[in-house]
Amino acid sequence: MSAEQPNGGHPINGGHPTNGIDDLVHQRHRLGILTITAEAQLADFGYLQEALELTAGNLSRHLTVLEEAGLVQVEKGYEGRRARTRVRITRQGRTALAGELAALTELVRRHGALS
Amino acid sequence: MSAEQPNGGHPINGGHPTNGIDDLVHQRHRLGILTITAEAQLADFGYLQEALELTAGNLSRHLTVLEEAGLVQVEKGYEGRRARTRVRITRQGRTALAGELAALTELVRRHGALS
Repeated sequence: MSAEQPNGGHPINGGHPTNGIDDLVHQRHRLGILTITAEAQLADFGYLQEALELTAGNLSRHLTVLEEAGLVQVEKGYEGRRARTRVRITRQGRTALAGELAALTELVRRHGALS
Repeated sequence: MSAEQPNGGHPINGGHPTNGIDDLVHQRHRLGILTITAEAQLADFGYLQEALELTAGNLSRHLTVLEEAGLVQVEKGYEGRRARTRVRITRQGRTALAGELAALTELVRRHGALS
């Protein structure tokens, strides 16, 4: 790949901001889960479901993807006799979210004024 | 849904920024195609392929999705004897991209400093 592409100001070597994005974190519901848990430290399943307007099944599915990638921990416990599931972001999850937010910031910086 | 959720500063009525995102535009390669065509007016297939690091098949597949949604027009022509495919963003594509960038801007504004 040449360093001198006739590319209208897009340095290909620097790469388009979307190239470095990880689909695992970029998917909008998973991005929602990560941003909320990064802020809340420990988020209730029910709160996430309501805040992100997801069915329980859909939320569970995305939590499984994130947990298998090591980005969140899902903690099942009881409050009195009531089952309670809470979600915590991991250090690796914070790092992944930081990378995603950096890519989105660059995208908005480059393209936010164009559309 | 109550207007007074104990939600740690997330007004659910305003909604989490990821809730309004359209997967059609949010998918990272399609977001790449839209941002580049919004800037370039008319983008070569080969340029898009290189800038976004996509195979021809993968780029074609995403262009078909965007074209069927009315967000881009794919123009096939010749330059001399050589086939040349170019991509143009539509007015509807610009509107969709503007909505996506607004959601991402809000997400970065709310969460950019947290991770």
